[in-house]
Amino acid sequence: MTVSPETSYRLRYGAPTVVEPPAEWTEVLAQQLSHRSVRRYRPDDEVSDETLSALIAAAQSAPTSGNLQLWSVVAVRDDARRRRLAVLAGEQGFIAQAPLFLVWLADLARARQITSNAGAPTAEGADFVEAALLSFVDVALAAQNASLAAESLGLGTVFVGAIRNRPLEVAAELGLPPNVFPVFGLTVGHPDRLDETAVKPRLPQEAVLHREQYSLDPQKPHVETYEDVLNTFYAAAGLPEGWAQRVAHRFGTVAGLKGREHLREALLAQGFQLR
Amino acid sequence: MTVSPETSYRLRYGAPTVVEPPAEWTEVLAQQLSHRSVRRYRPDDEVSDETLSALIAAAQSAPTSGNLQLWSVVAVRDDARRRRLAVLAGEQGFIAQAPLFLVWLADLARARQITSNAGAPTAEGADFVEAALLSFVDVALAAQNASLAAESLGLGTVFVGAIRNRPLEVAAELGLPPNVFPVFGLTVGHPDRLDETAVKPRLPQEAVLHREQYSLDPQKPHVETYEDVLNTFYAAAGLPEGWAQRVAHRFGTVAGLKGREHLREALLAQGFQLR
Repeated sequence: MTVSPETSYRLRYGAPTVVEPPAEWTEVLAQQLSHRSVRRYRPDDEVSDETLSALIAAAQSAPTSGNLQLWSVVAVRDDARRRRLAVLAGEQGFIAQAPLFLVWLADLARARQITSNAGAPTAEGADFVEAALLSFVDVALAAQNASLAAESLGLGTVFVGAIRNRPLEVAAELGLPPNVFPVFGLTVGHPDRLDETAVKPRLPQEAVLHREQYSLDPQKPHVETYEDVLNTFYAAAGLPEGWAQRVAHRFGTVAGLKGREHLREALLAQGFQLR
Repeated sequence: MTVSPETSYRLRYGAPTVVEPPAEWTEVLAQQLSHRSVRRYRPDDEVSDETLSALIAAAQSAPTSGNLQLWSVVAVRDDARRRRLAVLAGEQGFIAQAPLFLVWLADLARARQITSNAGAPTAEGADFVEAALLSFVDVALAAQNASLAAESLGLGTVFVGAIRNRPLEVAAELGLPPNVFPVFGLTVGHPDRLDETAVKPRLPQEAVLHREQYSLDPQKPHVETYEDVLNTFYAAAGLPEGWAQRVAHRFGTVAGLKGREHLREALLAQGFQLR
Protein backbone atom coordinates (compact mmCIF):
# COMPACT_ATOMS: atom_id res chain seq x y z
CA MET A 1 0.00 0.00 0.00
CA THR A 2 1.79 3.12 -1.16
CA VAL A 3 -1.03 5.65 -0.99
CA SER A 4 -2.16 6.99 2.39
CA PRO A 5 -5.87 7.06 3.29
CA GLU A 6 -5.72 10.86 3.27
CA THR A 7 -4.27 10.92 -0.24
CA SER A 8 -6.88 8.38 -1.39
CA TYR A 9 -9.66 10.66 -0.22
CA ARG A 10 -8.05 13.76 -1.69
CA LEU A 11 -7.82 12.10 -5.10
CA ARG A 12 -11.35 10.73 -4.91
CA TYR A 13 -13.04 13.97 -3.89
CA GLY A 14 -10.57 16.59 -5.02
CA ALA A 15 -8.87 18.91 -2.57
CA PRO A 16 -10.04 20.19 -0.19
CA THR A 17 -12.74 17.74 0.83
CA VAL A 18 -14.81 17.84 3.98
CA VAL A 19 -14.83 14.05 4.16
CA GLU A 20 -12.04 12.28 6.02
CA PRO A 21 -11.01 8.65 5.98
CA PRO A 22 -12.02 6.44 8.92
CA ALA A 23 -9.63 5.61 11.73
CA GLU A 24 -9.75 1.95 10.70
CA TRP A 25 -8.42 1.44 7.20
CA THR A 26 -8.46 -1.84 5.26
CA GLU A 27 -6.82 -3.26 2.17
CA VAL A 28 -10.27 -3.49 0.63
CA LEU A 29 -10.97 0.22 1.17
CA ALA A 30 -7.53 1.10 -0.17
CA GLN A 31 -8.13 -0.96 -3.31
CA GLN A 32 -11.59 0.48 -3.84
CA LEU A 33 -10.56 4.09 -3.33
CA SER A 34 -7.69 3.74 -5.81
CA HIS A 35 -9.94 2.55 -8.63
CA ARG A 36 -9.30 4.10 -12.01
CA SER A 37 -10.33 3.11 -15.53
CA VAL A 38 -7.59 1.54 -17.64
CA ARG A 39 -7.90 1.70 -21.42
CA ARG A 40 -4.31 0.99 -22.49
CA TYR A 41 -3.01 -2.54 -22.14
CA ARG A 42 0.09 -4.54 -22.94
CA PRO A 43 -1.53 -6.68 -25.64
CA ASP A 44 0.97 -9.55 -25.53
CA ASP A 45 0.74 -9.98 -21.79
CA GLU A 46 -2.00 -12.56 -21.36
CA VAL A 47 -4.41 -12.98 -18.48
CA SER A 48 -4.03 -16.62 -17.44
CA ASP A 49 -6.89 -19.08 -17.16
CA GLU A 50 -6.03 -19.37 -13.49
CA THR A 51 -6.52 -15.62 -13.03
CA LEU A 52 -9.75 -15.69 -15.05
CA SER A 53 -11.03 -18.42 -12.78
CA ALA A 54 -10.22 -16.31 -9.71
CA LEU A 55 -12.13 -13.35 -11.16
CA ILE A 56 -15.17 -15.56 -11.72
CA ALA A 57 -14.94 -16.99 -8.20
CA ALA A 58 -14.93 -13.42 -6.90
CA ALA A 59 -17.93 -12.60 -9.10
CA GLN A 60 -19.84 -15.65 -7.91
CA SER A 61 -19.12 -14.69 -4.30
CA ALA A 62 -21.13 -11.49 -4.67
CA PRO A 63 -24.65 -11.48 -3.27
CA THR A 64 -27.37 -12.66 -5.65
CA SER A 65 -31.06 -12.11 -4.99
CA GLY A 66 -32.60 -15.27 -3.53
CA ASN A 67 -29.48 -17.17 -4.67
CA LEU A 68 -31.05 -17.19 -8.15
CA GLN A 69 -27.71 -16.42 -9.88
CA LEU A 70 -29.33 -14.79 -12.89
CA TRP A 71 -26.16 -14.05 -14.81
CA SER A 72 -23.48 -15.61 -16.97
CA VAL A 73 -20.33 -14.28 -18.58
CA VAL A 74 -18.55 -14.95 -21.86
CA ALA A 75 -14.76 -14.72 -21.81
CA VAL A 76 -13.58 -13.56 -25.23
CA ARG A 77 -9.91 -14.04 -26.06
CA ASP A 78 -10.09 -14.63 -29.81
CA ASP A 79 -8.45 -11.71 -31.62
CA ALA A 80 -10.89 -11.55 -34.51
CA ARG A 81 -13.92 -11.70 -32.22
CA ARG A 82 -12.54 -8.94 -30.00
CA ARG A 83 -11.95 -6.81 -33.08
CA ARG A 84 -15.53 -7.38 -34.24
CA LEU A 85 -16.87 -6.56 -30.78
CA ALA A 86 -14.71 -3.41 -30.68
CA VAL A 87 -16.42 -2.27 -33.89
CA LEU A 88 -19.89 -3.06 -32.54
CA ALA A 89 -19.07 -1.12 -29.36
CA GLY A 90 -18.45 2.21 -31.00
CA GLU A 91 -15.03 1.52 -32.56
CA GLN A 92 -13.30 1.39 -29.19
CA GLY A 93 -9.88 0.01 -30.02
CA PHE A 94 -8.89 -0.88 -26.48
CA ILE A 95 -11.35 -3.80 -26.61
CA ALA A 96 -9.15 -5.37 -29.25
CA GLN A 97 -6.00 -4.37 -27.38
CA ALA A 98 -6.95 -5.95 -24.04
CA PRO A 99 -6.14 -9.67 -24.05
CA LEU A 100 -9.39 -10.56 -22.29
CA PHE A 101 -12.87 -9.15 -22.85
CA LEU A 102 -15.58 -10.31 -20.48
CA VAL A 103 -19.14 -9.84 -21.67
CA TRP A 104 -21.54 -9.90 -18.73
CA LEU A 105 -24.95 -11.35 -19.42
CA ALA A 106 -28.35 -11.01 -17.79
CA ASP A 107 -29.37 -14.66 -17.93
CA LEU A 108 -33.01 -15.66 -17.51
CA ALA A 109 -32.59 -18.67 -19.83
CA ARG A 110 -31.06 -20.93 -17.19
CA ALA A 111 -33.77 -20.08 -14.66
CA ARG A 112 -36.49 -20.60 -17.26
CA GLN A 113 -35.08 -24.01 -18.15
CA ILE A 114 -34.80 -25.00 -14.48
CA THR A 115 -38.36 -23.82 -13.85
CA SER A 116 -39.61 -25.85 -16.80
CA ASN A 117 -37.62 -28.94 -15.80
CA ALA A 118 -39.03 -28.67 -12.28
CA GLY A 119 -42.47 -29.26 -13.75
CA ALA A 120 -43.86 -25.72 -13.61
CA PRO A 121 -46.31 -25.23 -16.50
CA THR A 122 -44.87 -21.79 -17.31
CA ALA A 123 -42.08 -19.49 -16.18
CA GLU A 124 -44.47 -16.55 -16.24
CA GLY A 125 -42.66 -14.73 -13.45
CA ALA A 126 -39.66 -14.29 -15.73
CA ASP A 127 -41.75 -12.19 -18.12
CA PHE A 128 -41.85 -9.22 -15.75
CA VAL A 129 -39.68 -6.12 -15.42
CA GLU A 130 -38.84 -7.44 -11.94
CA ALA A 131 -37.03 -10.45 -13.43
CA ALA A 132 -35.05 -8.24 -15.80
CA LEU A 133 -34.10 -5.91 -12.94
CA LEU A 134 -33.04 -8.88 -10.79
CA SER A 135 -30.74 -10.04 -13.54
CA PHE A 136 -29.30 -6.57 -14.19
CA VAL A 137 -28.54 -6.08 -10.51
CA ASP A 138 -27.16 -9.59 -10.07
CA VAL A 139 -24.77 -9.24 -12.98
CA ALA A 140 -23.58 -5.81 -11.85
CA LEU A 141 -22.84 -7.00 -8.30
CA ALA A 142 -20.89 -9.92 -9.74
CA ALA A 143 -18.94 -7.86 -12.25
CA GLN A 144 -17.93 -5.27 -9.67
CA ASN A 145 -16.41 -8.01 -7.53
CA ALA A 146 -14.53 -9.33 -10.58
CA SER A 147 -13.25 -5.88 -11.46
CA LEU A 148 -11.99 -5.17 -7.95
CA ALA A 149 -10.42 -8.63 -7.75
CA ALA A 150 -8.61 -7.94 -11.03
CA GLU A 151 -7.31 -4.64 -9.70
CA SER A 152 -6.08 -6.36 -6.55
CA LEU A 153 -4.06 -8.68 -8.79
CA GLY A 154 -2.43 -5.73 -10.55
CA LEU A 155 -4.66 -5.82 -13.61
CA GLY A 156 -6.57 -2.93 -15.13
CA THR A 157 -10.20 -2.91 -16.26
CA VAL A 158 -12.84 -0.70 -17.73
CA PHE A 159 -16.57 -1.28 -18.08
CA VAL A 160 -17.95 -1.01 -21.63
CA GLY A 161 -21.59 0.01 -21.82
CA ALA A 162 -21.27 0.59 -25.56
CA ILE A 163 -22.00 -3.07 -26.29
CA ARG A 164 -25.59 -1.90 -25.85
CA ASN A 165 -25.26 0.36 -28.92
CA ARG A 166 -25.87 -2.69 -31.12
CA PRO A 167 -26.87 -5.38 -28.62
CA LEU A 168 -28.52 -7.82 -31.01
CA GLU A 169 -25.38 -7.99 -33.13
CA VAL A 170 -23.34 -8.60 -29.97
CA ALA A 171 -25.84 -11.31 -29.00
CA ALA A 172 -25.43 -12.97 -32.41
CA GLU A 173 -21.63 -12.77 -32.16
CA LEU A 174 -21.75 -14.56 -28.80
CA GLY A 175 -24.40 -17.09 -29.77
CA LEU A 176 -26.82 -15.88 -27.13
CA PRO A 177 -30.16 -17.73 -27.04
CA PRO A 178 -33.43 -16.03 -26.10
CA ASN A 179 -33.58 -14.70 -22.54
CA VAL A 180 -29.88 -13.92 -22.37
CA PHE A 181 -28.84 -10.30 -22.89
CA PRO A 182 -25.42 -8.58 -23.02
CA VAL A 183 -25.52 -5.86 -20.34
CA PHE A 184 -21.95 -4.54 -20.43
CA GLY A 185 -18.42 -5.61 -21.21
CA LEU A 186 -15.29 -5.47 -19.08
CA THR A 187 -11.84 -5.33 -20.60
CA VAL A 188 -9.11 -6.94 -18.50
CA GLY A 189 -5.38 -6.74 -19.01
CA HIS A 190 -2.03 -5.62 -17.75
CA PRO A 191 -1.95 -1.82 -17.72
CA ASP A 192 0.40 -0.23 -20.19
CA ARG A 193 3.03 1.65 -18.25
CA LEU A 194 2.30 4.62 -20.46
CA ASP A 195 -1.27 4.73 -19.21
CA GLU A 196 -1.56 7.87 -17.17
CA THR A 197 -5.17 7.41 -16.13
CA ALA A 198 -5.82 9.15 -12.86
CA VAL A 199 -8.35 8.58 -10.11
CA LYS A 200 -11.40 10.57 -11.15
CA PRO A 201 -13.03 12.76 -8.50
CA ARG A 202 -16.66 12.06 -7.66
CA LEU A 203 -19.50 14.26 -6.42
CA PRO A 204 -19.21 15.46 -2.82
CA GLN A 205 -20.74 12.90 -0.46
CA GLU A 206 -23.33 15.49 0.54
CA ALA A 207 -24.85 15.23 -2.95
CA VAL A 208 -25.42 11.45 -2.92
CA LEU A 209 -25.78 10.58 0.79
CA HIS A 210 -29.10 11.51 2.38
CA ARG A 211 -30.24 11.13 5.98
CA GLU A 212 -33.66 9.63 6.69
CA GLN A 213 -35.20 11.25 3.62
CA TYR A 214 -34.05 12.29 0.16
CA SER A 215 -33.78 15.88 -0.93
CA LEU A 216 -32.94 17.27 -4.35
CA ASP A 217 -32.55 21.03 -4.04
CA PRO A 218 -29.82 21.00 -1.34
CA GLN A 219 -27.64 19.05 -3.80
CA LYS A 220 -27.23 22.12 -5.99
CA PRO A 221 -24.26 23.81 -4.26
CA HIS A 222 -22.46 20.47 -4.08
CA VAL A 223 -23.00 19.90 -7.79
CA GLU A 224 -21.56 23.38 -8.39
CA THR A 225 -18.55 22.60 -6.22
CA TYR A 226 -18.08 19.41 -8.20
CA GLU A 227 -18.10 21.27 -11.49
CA ASP A 228 -15.03 23.21 -10.28
CA VAL A 229 -13.28 20.12 -8.90
CA LEU A 230 -13.80 18.21 -12.11
CA ASN A 231 -12.75 21.13 -14.30
CA THR A 232 -9.43 21.18 -12.45
CA PHE A 233 -9.15 17.46 -13.16
CA TYR A 234 -10.07 17.88 -16.83
CA ALA A 235 -7.60 20.72 -17.26
CA ALA A 236 -4.77 18.59 -15.84
CA ALA A 237 -5.74 15.78 -18.23
CA GLY A 238 -5.97 18.10 -21.23
CA LEU A 239 -9.70 17.39 -21.63
CA PRO A 240 -12.48 19.87 -22.38
CA GLU A 241 -14.27 21.33 -19.37
CA GLY A 242 -17.79 20.82 -18.14
CA TRP A 243 -19.39 17.94 -16.25
CA ALA A 244 -22.89 19.42 -16.47
CA GLN A 245 -22.39 19.80 -20.22
CA ARG A 246 -21.45 16.12 -20.48
CA VAL A 247 -24.55 15.07 -18.53
CA ALA A 248 -26.71 17.34 -20.67
CA HIS A 249 -25.13 15.97 -23.84
CA ARG A 250 -26.01 12.44 -22.78
CA PHE A 251 -29.63 13.08 -21.85
CA GLY A 252 -30.57 16.31 -23.65
CA THR A 253 -31.34 14.57 -26.92
CA VAL A 254 -32.12 11.09 -28.15
CA ALA A 255 -28.97 11.26 -30.30
CA GLY A 256 -26.90 11.26 -27.11
CA LEU A 257 -27.95 7.66 -26.55
CA LYS A 258 -26.01 6.47 -29.63
CA GLY A 259 -28.44 3.77 -30.64
CA ARG A 260 -29.37 2.76 -27.14
CA GLU A 261 -32.76 4.41 -27.58
CA HIS A 262 -33.63 1.04 -29.13
CA LEU A 263 -32.70 -0.93 -26.01
CA ARG A 264 -36.31 -1.70 -25.14
CA GLU A 265 -36.99 -3.23 -28.54
CA ALA A 266 -33.73 -5.18 -28.33
CA LEU A 267 -34.65 -6.60 -24.93
CA LEU A 268 -38.07 -7.59 -26.26
CA ALA A 269 -36.50 -9.18 -29.33
CA GLN A 270 -34.20 -11.16 -27.07
CA GLY A 271 -37.15 -12.47 -25.01
CA PHE A 272 -37.18 -10.05 -22.07
CA GLN A 273 -40.85 -9.23 -22.04
CA LEU A 274 -40.74 -6.34 -19.55
CA ARG A 275 -44.35 -6.81 -18.41
CA MET B 1 -6.70 -13.88 7.37
CA THR B 2 -7.75 -17.07 9.11
CA VAL B 3 -9.20 -19.01 6.18
CA SER B 4 -6.88 -20.52 3.57
CA PRO B 5 -7.56 -19.96 -0.15
CA GLU B 6 -8.29 -23.69 -0.51
CA THR B 7 -10.88 -23.56 2.27
CA SER B 8 -12.42 -20.44 0.77
CA TYR B 9 -12.92 -22.25 -2.53
CA ARG B 10 -14.24 -25.40 -0.86
CA LEU B 11 -16.87 -23.39 1.01
CA ARG B 12 -17.82 -21.36 -2.06
CA TYR B 13 -18.22 -24.30 -4.43
CA GLY B 14 -18.78 -27.21 -2.05
CA ALA B 15 -16.36 -30.10 -1.91
CA PRO B 16 -14.97 -31.41 -4.12
CA THR B 17 -14.64 -28.61 -6.65
CA VAL B 18 -12.67 -28.72 -9.86
CA VAL B 19 -11.73 -25.04 -9.47
CA GLU B 20 -8.62 -24.15 -7.53
CA PRO B 21 -7.50 -20.82 -6.11
CA PRO B 22 -4.83 -18.86 -7.98
CA ALA B 23 -1.19 -18.90 -6.90
CA GLU B 24 -1.42 -15.19 -6.13
CA TRP B 25 -3.92 -14.48 -3.38
CA THR B 26 -4.99 -11.05 -2.17
CA GLU B 27 -6.84 -9.59 0.81
CA VAL B 28 -9.54 -8.48 -1.60
CA LEU B 29 -10.09 -12.02 -2.94
CA ALA B 30 -10.10 -13.39 0.60
CA GLN B 31 -12.73 -10.86 1.66
CA GLN B 32 -14.87 -11.49 -1.39
CA LEU B 33 -14.75 -15.28 -1.16
CA SER B 34 -15.76 -15.19 2.49
CA HIS B 35 -18.95 -13.20 1.85
CA ARG B 36 -22.03 -14.40 3.65
CA SER B 37 -25.40 -12.79 4.35
CA VAL B 38 -25.87 -11.54 7.90
CA ARG B 39 -29.44 -11.16 9.21
CA ARG B 40 -28.82 -11.04 12.96
CA TYR B 41 -27.26 -7.94 14.46
CA ARG B 42 -26.37 -6.51 17.82
CA PRO B 43 -29.00 -3.75 17.79
CA ASP B 44 -27.34 -1.49 20.36
CA ASP B 45 -23.99 -1.51 18.60
CA GLU B 46 -24.17 1.52 16.31
CA VAL B 47 -22.45 2.03 12.97
CA SER B 48 -20.64 5.34 13.35
CA ASP B 49 -21.01 8.27 10.99
CA GLU B 50 -17.32 7.89 10.24
CA THR B 51 -17.88 4.31 9.12
CA LEU B 52 -20.94 5.29 7.09
CA SER B 53 -18.85 7.90 5.33
CA ALA B 54 -16.22 5.29 4.49
CA LEU B 55 -18.87 2.98 2.99
CA ILE B 56 -20.13 5.82 0.81
CA ALA B 57 -16.60 6.71 -0.29
CA ALA B 58 -16.16 3.06 -1.30
CA ALA B 59 -19.47 3.16 -3.17
CA GLN B 60 -18.53 6.36 -4.98
CA SER B 61 -15.22 4.81 -5.99
CA ALA B 62 -17.00 2.15 -8.04
CA PRO B 63 -17.13 2.68 -11.80
CA THR B 64 -20.10 4.69 -13.08
CA SER B 65 -21.07 4.81 -16.73
CA GLY B 66 -19.74 7.99 -18.31
CA ASN B 67 -19.14 9.36 -14.78
CA LEU B 68 -22.87 10.15 -14.72
CA GLN B 69 -23.26 8.95 -11.09
CA LEU B 70 -26.93 8.09 -11.49
CA TRP B 71 -27.54 6.99 -7.92
CA SER B 72 -28.10 8.22 -4.40
CA VAL B 73 -28.57 6.51 -1.07
CA VAL B 74 -30.67 7.23 2.01
CA ALA B 75 -29.17 6.22 5.35
CA VAL B 76 -32.00 5.31 7.71
CA ARG B 77 -31.19 5.13 11.42
CA ASP B 78 -34.51 6.24 12.93
CA ASP B 79 -36.08 3.31 14.78
CA ALA B 80 -39.65 4.01 13.79
CA ARG B 81 -38.76 4.47 10.15
CA ARG B 82 -36.79 1.23 10.07
CA ARG B 83 -39.75 -0.57 11.62
CA ARG B 84 -42.08 0.85 9.00
CA LEU B 85 -39.68 -0.11 6.20
CA ALA B 86 -39.38 -3.62 7.68
CA VAL B 87 -43.16 -3.97 7.38
CA LEU B 88 -43.17 -2.66 3.80
CA ALA B 89 -40.40 -5.13 2.92
CA GLY B 90 -42.28 -8.28 3.75
CA GLU B 91 -42.21 -8.09 7.56
CA GLN B 92 -38.48 -8.74 7.70
CA GLY B 93 -37.58 -8.00 11.30
CA PHE B 94 -33.84 -7.79 10.79
CA ILE B 95 -34.34 -4.45 9.02
CA ALA B 96 -35.52 -3.02 12.33
CA GLN B 97 -32.78 -4.88 14.22
CA ALA B 98 -29.85 -3.58 12.16
CA PRO B 99 -28.79 -0.12 13.38
CA LEU B 100 -28.32 1.16 9.82
CA PHE B 101 -30.48 0.58 6.76
CA LEU B 102 -29.19 1.94 3.47
CA VAL B 103 -31.77 2.37 0.73
CA TRP B 104 -30.07 2.51 -2.65
CA LEU B 105 -31.74 4.70 -5.24
CA ALA B 106 -31.70 4.85 -9.00
CA ASP B 107 -31.48 8.62 -9.41
CA LEU B 108 -32.35 10.27 -12.70
CA ALA B 109 -33.65 13.41 -10.95
CA ARG B 110 -30.23 14.94 -10.41
CA ALA B 111 -29.21 14.34 -14.03
CA ARG B 112 -32.50 15.74 -15.29
CA GLN B 113 -32.06 18.86 -13.20
CA ILE B 114 -28.46 19.30 -14.38
CA THR B 115 -29.54 18.79 -18.00
CA SER B 116 -32.26 21.39 -17.60
CA ASN B 117 -29.97 23.86 -15.84
CA ALA B 118 -27.42 23.43 -18.63
CA GLY B 119 -29.98 24.85 -21.01
CA ALA B 120 -31.10 21.71 -22.80
CA PRO B 121 -34.75 22.10 -23.82
CA THR B 122 -35.62 18.58 -22.62
CA ALA B 123 -33.97 15.64 -20.90
CA GLU B 124 -35.56 13.27 -23.37
CA GLY B 125 -32.71 10.76 -23.19
CA ALA B 126 -33.64 10.04 -19.58
CA ASP B 127 -37.04 8.74 -20.72
CA PHE B 128 -35.56 5.58 -22.21
CA VAL B 129 -35.03 2.08 -20.81
CA GLU B 130 -31.32 2.74 -21.35
CA ALA B 131 -31.33 5.49 -18.71
CA ALA B 132 -33.12 3.25 -16.21
CA LEU B 133 -30.66 0.44 -16.88
CA LEU B 134 -27.70 2.81 -16.47
CA SER B 135 -29.03 3.85 -13.07
CA PHE B 136 -29.75 0.26 -11.95
CA VAL B 137 -26.24 -0.85 -12.92
CA ASP B 138 -24.59 2.23 -11.40
CA VAL B 139 -26.33 1.77 -8.06
CA ALA B 140 -25.53 -1.94 -7.93
CA LEU B 141 -21.82 -1.38 -8.62
CA ALA B 142 -21.75 1.24 -5.88
CA ALA B 143 -23.64 -0.83 -3.33
CA GLN B 144 -21.46 -3.88 -3.86
CA ASN B 145 -18.39 -1.80 -3.05
CA ALA B 146 -20.11 -0.51 0.08
CA SER B 147 -21.10 -4.00 1.17
CA LEU B 148 -17.58 -5.39 0.71
CA ALA B 149 -16.09 -2.38 2.48
CA ALA B 150 -18.45 -3.00 5.41
CA GLU B 151 -17.40 -6.63 5.59
CA SER B 152 -13.75 -5.62 5.56
CA LEU B 153 -14.49 -3.47 8.64
CA GLY B 154 -16.01 -6.45 10.45
CA LEU B 155 -19.63 -5.51 9.77
CA GLY B 156 -22.33 -7.72 8.32
CA THR B 157 -24.77 -6.87 5.56
CA VAL B 158 -27.59 -8.30 3.52
CA PHE B 159 -29.26 -6.94 0.41
CA VAL B 160 -33.04 -6.47 0.65
CA GLY B 161 -34.87 -6.71 -2.68
CA ALA B 162 -38.20 -6.86 -0.89
CA ILE B 163 -38.40 -3.06 -0.74
CA ARG B 164 -39.67 -3.52 -4.30
CA ASN B 165 -42.75 -5.37 -3.01
CA ARG B 166 -44.36 -2.00 -2.22
CA PRO B 167 -41.96 0.48 -3.82
CA LEU B 168 -44.26 3.50 -3.97
CA GLU B 169 -44.89 3.31 -0.23
CA VAL B 170 -41.14 3.07 0.33
CA ALA B 171 -40.70 6.09 -1.97
CA ALA B 172 -43.24 8.05 0.07
CA GLU B 173 -41.56 7.06 3.34
CA LEU B 174 -38.24 8.37 2.04
CA GLY B 175 -39.64 11.50 0.40
CA LEU B 176 -38.47 10.48 -3.05
CA PRO B 177 -39.34 12.94 -5.83
CA PRO B 178 -40.15 11.83 -9.39
CA ASN B 179 -37.28 10.12 -11.21
CA VAL B 180 -35.80 8.57 -8.06
CA PHE B 181 -36.60 4.92 -7.37
CA PRO B 182 -35.71 2.59 -4.47
CA VAL B 183 -33.90 -0.39 -6.05
CA PHE B 184 -32.84 -2.39 -3.00
CA GLY B 185 -31.93 -1.98 0.64
CA LEU B 186 -28.82 -3.01 2.53
CA THR B 187 -28.83 -3.65 6.25
CA VAL B 188 -25.54 -2.89 8.00
CA GLY B 189 -24.57 -3.77 11.54
CA HIS B 190 -22.34 -5.70 13.85
CA PRO B 191 -23.05 -9.41 13.42
CA ASP B 192 -24.64 -11.11 16.39
CA ARG B 193 -22.23 -13.72 17.67
CA LEU B 194 -25.10 -16.18 17.56
CA ASP B 195 -25.40 -15.72 13.81
CA GLU B 196 -24.35 -18.98 12.28
CA THR B 197 -24.76 -17.95 8.67
CA ALA B 198 -22.43 -19.94 6.45
CA VAL B 199 -20.85 -19.21 3.10
CA LYS B 200 -23.40 -20.39 0.55
CA PRO B 201 -22.11 -22.52 -2.30
CA ARG B 202 -22.65 -21.24 -5.81
CA LEU B 203 -23.11 -22.94 -9.19
CA PRO B 204 -20.02 -24.64 -10.61
CA GLN B 205 -17.98 -22.15 -12.65
CA GLU B 206 -18.65 -24.26 -15.74
CA ALA B 207 -22.32 -23.24 -15.58
CA VAL B 208 -21.74 -19.48 -15.62
CA LEU B 209 -18.39 -19.04 -17.40
CA HIS B 210 -18.47 -19.47 -21.17
CA ARG B 211 -15.61 -19.34 -23.66
CA GLU B 212 -16.03 -17.27 -26.83
CA GLN B 213 -19.72 -18.15 -27.13
CA TYR B 214 -22.56 -18.94 -24.76
CA SER B 215 -24.16 -22.37 -24.52
CA LEU B 216 -27.17 -23.41 -22.48
CA ASP B 217 -27.50 -27.20 -22.76
CA PRO B 218 -24.00 -28.06 -21.46
CA GLN B 219 -24.93 -26.29 -18.21
CA LYS B 220 -27.37 -29.05 -17.31
CA PRO B 221 -24.99 -31.54 -15.61
CA HIS B 222 -23.44 -28.68 -13.64
CA VAL B 223 -26.87 -27.53 -12.46
CA GLU B 224 -27.54 -31.13 -11.36
CA THR B 225 -24.23 -31.25 -9.49
CA TYR B 226 -25.18 -28.01 -7.80
CA GLU B 227 -28.52 -29.39 -6.66
CA ASP B 228 -26.61 -32.03 -4.71
CA VAL B 229 -24.06 -29.56 -3.30
CA LEU B 230 -26.77 -27.19 -2.16
CA ASN B 231 -28.91 -29.95 -0.67
CA THR B 232 -25.95 -30.93 1.49
CA PHE B 233 -25.70 -27.27 2.53
CA TYR B 234 -29.44 -27.01 3.22
CA ALA B 235 -29.43 -30.22 5.25
CA ALA B 236 -26.62 -28.91 7.43
CA ALA B 237 -28.56 -25.68 7.95
CA GLY B 238 -31.81 -27.49 8.71
CA LEU B 239 -33.50 -25.99 5.66
CA PRO B 240 -35.77 -27.75 3.15
CA GLU B 241 -34.07 -29.19 0.08
CA GLY B 242 -34.27 -28.12 -3.52
CA TRP B 243 -32.62 -25.26 -5.40
CA ALA B 244 -34.51 -25.96 -8.61
CA GLN B 245 -37.76 -25.95 -6.64
CA ARG B 246 -36.86 -22.55 -5.19
CA VAL B 247 -36.14 -21.15 -8.67
CA ALA B 248 -39.36 -22.64 -10.00
CA HIS B 249 -41.30 -21.23 -7.06
CA ARG B 250 -39.99 -17.76 -7.85
CA PHE B 251 -40.69 -17.78 -11.56
CA GLY B 252 -43.33 -20.47 -12.06
CA THR B 253 -46.23 -18.21 -11.14
CA VAL B 254 -46.94 -14.51 -10.86
CA ALA B 255 -47.66 -15.04 -7.15
CA GLY B 256 -43.97 -15.88 -6.65
CA LEU B 257 -43.17 -12.24 -7.37
CA LYS B 258 -44.93 -11.07 -4.18
CA GLY B 259 -46.23 -7.83 -5.58
CA ARG B 260 -43.25 -7.10 -7.76
CA GLU B 261 -45.32 -7.97 -10.83
CA HIS B 262 -46.38 -4.31 -10.52
CA LEU B 263 -42.82 -2.99 -10.73
CA ARG B 264 -43.31 -1.62 -14.25
CA GLU B 265 -46.33 0.43 -13.19
CA ALA B 266 -44.45 1.63 -10.11
CA LEU B 267 -41.48 2.77 -12.21
CA LEU B 268 -43.83 4.59 -14.58
CA ALA B 269 -45.63 6.22 -11.65
CA GLN B 270 -42.29 7.37 -10.30
CA GLY B 271 -41.34 8.95 -13.64
CA PHE B 272 -39.19 6.25 -15.23
CA GLN B 273 -40.78 6.21 -18.64
CA LEU B 274 -39.11 3.04 -19.97
CA ARG B 275 -39.40 4.07 -23.63
